[in-house]
Amino acid sequence: MDVLVPFSTADPKSRLSDVLDADERAAFSRAMLADVIEAVRGTGEAPTVLATAPVEVGAPVVVDDRSLSTAVNAALDGAIGRADDTSHRDHDDAGADRDRDDAVAVVMADLALATPTALGRLFDADGDVAIAAGRGGGTNALVVRHPGFRVDYHGASYVDHLRIAAAAGASVREVDSHRLATDVDEASDLAEVLVHGDGEAAGWLRSAGFALDAGDGRVGVVRE
Amino acid sequence: MDVLVPFSTADPKSRLSDVLDADERAAFSRAMLADVIEAVRGTGEAPTVLATAPVEVGAPVVVDDRSLSTAVNAALDGAIGRADDTSHRDHDDAGADRDRDDAVAVVMADLALATPTALGRLFDADGDVAIAAGRGGGTNALVVRHPGFRVDYHGASYVDHLRIAAAAGASVREVDSHRLATDVDEASDLAEVLVHGDGEAAGWLRSAGFALDAGDGRVGVVRE
Repeated sequence: MDVLVPFSTADPKSRLSDVLDADERAAFSRAMLADVIEAVRGTGEAPTVLATAPVEVGAPVVVDDRSLSTAVNAALDGAIGRADDTSHRDHDDAGADRDRDDAVAVVMADLALATPTALGRLFDADGDVAIAAGRGGGTNALVVRHPGFRVDYHGASYVDHLRIAAAAGASVREVDSHRLATDVDEASDLAEVLVHGDGEAAGWLRSAGFALDAGDGRVGVVRE
Repeated sequence: MDVLVPFSTADPKSRLSDVLDADERAAFSRAMLADVIEAVRGTGEAPTVLATAPVEVGAPVVVDDRSLSTAVNAALDGAIGRADDTSHRDHDDAGADRDRDDAVAVVMADLALATPTALGRLFDADGDVAIAAGRGGGTNALVVRHPGFRVDYHGASYVDHLRIAAAAGASVREVDSHRLATDVDEASDLAEVLVHGDGEAAGWLRSAGFALDAGDGRVGVVRE
């Protein structure tokens, strides 16, 4: 299985700018990327970072400065179309066991709660396309085995991806995971990292003085 | 398995008051409760609604007007302590199959995305305590099999419940589900219902004029 982790080096995590300055956002986004790389490796797979510019991350990096959807689709073009074993291209065998080798996974770099268990559920899910939704209608991680499926990350991409799969005749399996649904974009998301995370991103936040703030309703964060 | 669904009839969903008036919040909360009852029944279990006042909901209702934690703990006192088969009280058998009959589940009434599949993963999870976290450090659903465990829903209850379980010597299994993590409290949560829900709550929102609003970042809702 090819596992791609798209990563933008340009002004990362801009929606955290009210709680983190630019250097801090860069460092925090790198910590989250390190956690995602580690979680992917914990499944037995070797991730490739698909970055908008060269970056040192302790994993192979492919640089593509085009938009997220364009870069991911170019990678899908190269990978899904290349198989020489056409028996895996018979999409009538929906009930058969799927082989991880015959797939491309795309896992967002800001899934600071990702674990090998959560990613393993995605990687081993049936379906021509397996999707872990993100909060707010996004698509945080997916596995593609169907040559007719391409991504479109703009807007409510989860709903769009269901439509694209249906149009391509590709079966879809939803992977229901809070850990994979939690991309870290906004200040309120930091509480999730402090509650559930135990990797570099959670450590970085604690070192930067963030702590849980239990008021009424959902728990937020304070910076000391 | 006893499955309790706590439901407050007093000013429900107050944090939705900027988008729904009091009558609408009451109707919407009843639609979500109906969806939760249906999802529990889909697992083969028969839910009991633990309500703060008498209410007609198409399921058995037990009225307890005390606080959520007090009412749930009273129910746990009655259920977990009552078994006459003491063999199930040996908590050294962590590897053994657990019997649903020997457990109490507590499922919040505002889990509008709950499905039989998601709840079944919780009900069948190993552990003296199985917990589905809610966003913001909450506890949206749990299964209790250990007589020493009691709930405390105040504040960051997920973290507190881990501590309470550890203090009681109870093993804990995390159930990682976006559907169970999504309690519907705030306007932004309505987008999750429109994206992923297909029950009464989603239908109620659509009838009330709500639709997805895809802007930058996460998808929100608009009311037409």
